[in-house]
Amino acid sequence: MILFQSDYTEGACPEIMHRLIETNMEQTPGYSEDVHCLRAAKLIQEACQAPESKVHFLVGGTQTNMTVIGAALRPYQGVLSAESGHIHVHETGAVESLGYKILSLPAVDGKIKAVQIDEACTLHKNDDSFEHMVQPKMVYLSQPTELGTLYTKQELEEIRNVCDKHELYLFIDGARLGYGLMAKGNDVDLPSMARLTDVFYIGGTKVGALFGEAVVISNPVLQKDFRYMIKQRGGMLAKGRLLGIQFETLFEDNLYEKVSKHAIDLADKLREAFVKKGYPFLVENTTNQIFPIIEDTKLEELAKTFGFCYQQRVDESRSAVRFCTSWATKEENVDALIQAL
Amino acid sequence: MILFQSDYTEGACPEIMHRLIETNMEQTPGYSEDVHCLRAAKLIQEACQAPESKVHFLVGGTQTNMTVIGAALRPYQGVLSAESGHIHVHETGAVESLGYKILSLPAVDGKIKAVQIDEACTLHKNDDSFEHMVQPKMVYLSQPTELGTLYTKQELEEIRNVCDKHELYLFIDGARLGYGLMAKGNDVDLPSMARLTDVFYIGGTKVGALFGEAVVISNPVLQKDFRYMIKQRGGMLAKGRLLGIQFETLFEDNLYEKVSKHAIDLADKLREAFVKKGYPFLVENTTNQIFPIIEDTKLEELAKTFGFCYQQRVDESRSAVRFCTSWATKEENVDALIQAL
Amino acid sequence: MILFQSDYTEGACPEIMHRLIETNMEQTPGYSEDVHCLRAAKLIQEACQAPESKVHFLVGGTQTNMTVIGAALRPYQGVLSAESGHIHVHETGAVESLGYKILSLPAVDGKIKAVQIDEACTLHKNDDSFEHMVQPKMVYLSQPTELGTLYTKQELEEIRNVCDKHELYLFIDGARLGYGLMAKGNDVDLPSMARLTDVFYIGGTKVGALFGEAVVISNPVLQKDFRYMIKQRGGMLAKGRLLGIQFETLFEDNLYEKVSKHAIDLADKLREAFVKKGYPFLVENTTNQIFPIIEDTKLEELAKTFGFCYQQRVDESRSAVRFCTSWATKEENVDALIQAL
Amino acid sequence: MILFQSDYTEGACPEIMHRLIETNMEQTPGYSEDVHCLRAAKLIQEACQAPESKVHFLVGGTQTNMTVIGAALRPYQGVLSAESGHIHVHETGAVESLGYKILSLPAVDGKIKAVQIDEACTLHKNDDSFEHMVQPKMVYLSQPTELGTLYTKQELEEIRNVCDKHELYLFIDGARLGYGLMAKGNDVDLPSMARLTDVFYIGGTKVGALFGEAVVISNPVLQKDFRYMIKQRGGMLAKGRLLGIQFETLFEDNLYEKVSKHAIDLADKLREAFVKKGYPFLVENTTNQIFPIIEDTKLEELAKTFGFCYQQRVDESRSAVRFCTSWATKEENVDALIQAL
Repeated sequence: MILFQSDYTEGACPEIMHRLIETNMEQTPGYSEDVHCLRAAKLIQEACQAPESKVHFLVGGTQTNMTVIGAALRPYQGVLSAESGHIHVHETGAVESLGYKILSLPAVDGKIKAVQIDEACTLHKNDDSFEHMVQPKMVYLSQPTELGTLYTKQELEEIRNVCDKHELYLFIDGARLGYGLMAKGNDVDLPSMARLTDVFYIGGTKVGALFGEAVVISNPVLQKDFRYMIKQRGGMLAKGRLLGIQFETLFEDNLYEKVSKHAIDLADKLREAFVKKGYPFLVENTTNQIFPIIEDTKLEELAKTFGFCYQQRVDESRSAVRFCTSWATKEENVDALIQAL
Repeated sequence: MILFQSDYTEGACPEIMHRLIETNMEQTPGYSEDVHCLRAAKLIQEACQAPESKVHFLVGGTQTNMTVIGAALRPYQGVLSAESGHIHVHETGAVESLGYKILSLPAVDGKIKAVQIDEACTLHKNDDSFEHMVQPKMVYLSQPTELGTLYTKQELEEIRNVCDKHELYLFIDGARLGYGLMAKGNDVDLPSMARLTDVFYIGGTKVGALFGEAVVISNPVLQKDFRYMIKQRGGMLAKGRLLGIQFETLFEDNLYEKVSKHAIDLADKLREAFVKKGYPFLVENTTNQIFPIIEDTKLEELAKTFGFCYQQRVDESRSAVRFCTSWATKEENVDALIQAL
Repeated sequence: MILFQSDYTEGACPEIMHRLIETNMEQTPGYSEDVHCLRAAKLIQEACQAPESKVHFLVGGTQTNMTVIGAALRPYQGVLSAESGHIHVHETGAVESLGYKILSLPAVDGKIKAVQIDEACTLHKNDDSFEHMVQPKMVYLSQPTELGTLYTKQELEEIRNVCDKHELYLFIDGARLGYGLMAKGNDVDLPSMARLTDVFYIGGTKVGALFGEAVVISNPVLQKDFRYMIKQRGGMLAKGRLLGIQFETLFEDNLYEKVSKHAIDLADKLREAFVKKGYPFLVENTTNQIFPIIEDTKLEELAKTFGFCYQQRVDESRSAVRFCTSWATKEENVDALIQAL
Repeated sequence: MILFQSDYTEGACPEIMHRLIETNMEQTPGYSEDVHCLRAAKLIQEACQAPESKVHFLVGGTQTNMTVIGAALRPYQGVLSAESGHIHVHETGAVESLGYKILSLPAVDGKIKAVQIDEACTLHKNDDSFEHMVQPKMVYLSQPTELGTLYTKQELEEIRNVCDKHELYLFIDGARLGYGLMAKGNDVDLPSMARLTDVFYIGGTKVGALFGEAVVISNPVLQKDFRYMIKQRGGMLAKGRLLGIQFETLFEDNLYEKVSKHAIDLADKLREAFVKKGYPFLVENTTNQIFPIIEDTKLEELAKTFGFCYQQRVDESRSAVRFCTSWATKEENVDALIQAL
């Protein structure tokens, strides 16, 4: 079987594995208070051109989302998210488990618009019984989105403005950020992310690392006491250096970009093949997740050799599915898949 | 000003006030362990033909909803509710504040259908990543709904069946139950409520009492340790007898039905007047809340003399508003409003 | 049976019952946005000489404690309390149910000292793994305490100073405040309470009202959005005017002080009788709760006629019990008890 | 500097690093649904002689404690723990953050006794206002304890009996379990752990792995839906195989015991040296944590070369400190320390 179902089917890129071996018997203090975390944070601040930001390392995405959101909201405040947002659909209610309501907004292509945020906040403020409703206080986006689409810099600027207007925090989930950065047509770089958000994170788990997400906090209000929040949420890794070492490696010599570009190149190749064979897409995008619409009979055949994700039924005979490439995808496997199409 | 904006603009019906005065200097133990609560519970069990049920008294609706839902769900489970459900919209995220996600379903007239529940549960079970999503475990309805509509006995039977199929609890919020019981065409009585639900409550606050909701729990699983839950949620009234005395009074000599019927009669009179004057309704119903669609200019004029609730904009020149009658509404005030129309 | 087991065995003082009857058919908006609540708040601000404070009305003590504490703390912060504090022992973990740890301090007579608070905070700050421990952020006291003892103004000043030093909020639970205000030797008046605390409350449930606690918030940080917190915690009474009317009545013509004094006078009479008969006390105090140590055989005899609370075993043959007087206690009943001793 | 301050100062034992490299490019499904996790679970079931148990893998200790406790308790229930228990002191209120109170019991040597548990439960049940107090439902121990002491099999049998008597779950935190298993005089093996507890875990983070704790659930009630809990708590590692591979390695060829024994041998050597030099201990134990009492002047000198943990002041001139050995400790470093003493 050749697996395309997700971008976390392998371990980590060889550079990281090498560094883990190399540093294995070093003695360091625990809980990310070691030289590797320090250096990784510095490299990320530089890449983001955000020397005042604080960088923290967590193990996984759900953990990161709940820690960040919990650090930002008071109990009666909520977070605006696309209906398809990861926190709303695929985290077993982790955000609600902390006591916070997710205020969902429709989003056909996985993206929400500044105007939707504006309307939601305006409606809330103008309602007579506003204290009987959850107060919007944060916007949660992901870049790329669950459907692999990307916000443009212009769109993010508009969202930032509406956040300022209504005193909302802007939080961007970058679990697959690398694949967004390297996608064709993308104009949102790391410094823009740091400038436009109050907090965002750079995903490692799906982009070359064994695990790990680097949270970049620009807003000083959210920086305060963040380590308490990490510890309370069970996110403070005893051997925190493992996170430091991985991100240190990813942010030396542009490794993060390199491994991301590898995935994008192969995704583009695969995407092109789908187009050529006449398969339409559930949604158009330029990142590492591809959502072709394929006949069920063909899917059955492909499933004998290839792993992919079922997304949704499109009509009686066809379904949309998901194929992912990653830093680890082998070109020969993509070729085999193209062949099988 | 004459207020029609809600059904809680006055105190309590005279019979209750009389009994409160009469019993004022009686000495009783606290926390609803007194003879009045005991007797009120017995009267309610009888009215519901549910001798095995447990009856508890709480102060208000939000408190009751959060206590019941919190008693039923494990942390990763959620409650299915109409999008317009009170818990989803107007309780400042009280259910989420306890850690539970509300899984909302579209509901044009405030009602959800058995088939929607079935689909939601089936989708959950069939999903590959079902453990990454909140598990549906309870259905929350209100009777009457937020829009004053009513479930028929047939509809509740169907919902009960689908709850059994998927091992869901059925919980009905009866904050305005009296007005449902007495509405024209209603075929759901108290024994049906007790038989078809795992737990429901009989609203006092909006139906003749100063405050108070009587929770009727049929399912033994939910009966266990319920008083711990009440206490922890801040719902255990020190002078619990106040709740007992009020419900004792409401369930003697059919007072609950009588005061409800008064509201319905006046609502029907008012409803008829709207029809005669040619005002359409946002939604058709037969209970004590009426949602006429009226020109904004006319509303401005009415607002000088009458209190009502803004519901939603319908088109450029008209809005839907809400007028409520209650146990306390005076016929002369209804007449004055009809006159003003 | 004559009940001395608590100070909430009767309804409300006649003045309140009278006003409830009188205002019963007035139409008012809900949720404490009525003229009675407005006036009650103003009377309390005046009594506290705190025109900038915000006054809110809640139904009961547990609800008030959890709402106030939840409004003040971030998730990783905790509240310092006496080991015997009501929130730590007798609220079924309501504070923890919101996610907050209670950091308990030993307190022989129910009181904690400024120096204990100082030590706890200093230890926290100096610990290497401070982020692995809950951060102290609030001090919770009650006046009178669970054991009926009182803080002196000097003690509260010291506690205020140490709160300032460590940036802690000071919150005083005044569920029985009236009985403290009127106790012999007390030097803490309402203006001192408002000046020295960030937030405190004036108990109605145990001091003349049917129910109700008036929260006085001096600190603007805690004032913000407090009504959202009340609603979310299920504490926003639909007919909020019931709270307004009661506190309006209690704060006109010094009724709150008068009914409190009645209880204290009778408590003093009873206390004196215990002393005369040679019964020692578990703890010395001057408020409405008396904790005599009595032989078990004698208690058995008393229990035939009088209700009282078991407090704790003292030695093989004797136990400490609690007798309470209240605004409603009849002198003849106190005399009967004295006779029976 | 030579670090003895904790048992997580290095990476992982070479066997694990080797296997991680070896399997790095294998493709596996995520979320611990891979062959390595399957096999690791089987090996652990065998080592525990518990074929009916369920084994789950989590990343760290705090996460594991909160996930297990949250899976077991209803909102009004609490967990009994030694005052010095890790969940009570060093997890930033993680358990409370989920809504559960920790009911602490005094424990001089880090251990609680069956009789204390019995008393706490009996007191709760006999109290008149039992519903006003948190209901004890779980016992949390650690083996070894925070002070490196060990429960004997006899003690655990007694605790099991009292848990059965009061219907409590028994949960043992085995973050350092390996060092307990190999300690001199220990008579509690893995099959006893599985037999006597409802749930316990085998620590990897401190015993040879990069990270990871293996939860062994014997009680079917706690087995149900446990993966939902893991996901909701942010504990479901995308590349779950990393946990499987590590525990697979640790439970092949007795590696877990071997690496643990290494730590114990060196701890014993060091312990003996302290005895010889006449240093008393804060507490006597036989595991990998040693708590000598040393003059402050001497500590200052040692601190120039050696890392250790400050534990507590003992008298004016002496403090208790902690030295740990681990699977990674080098004998030459122990010798250097002994030399320096």
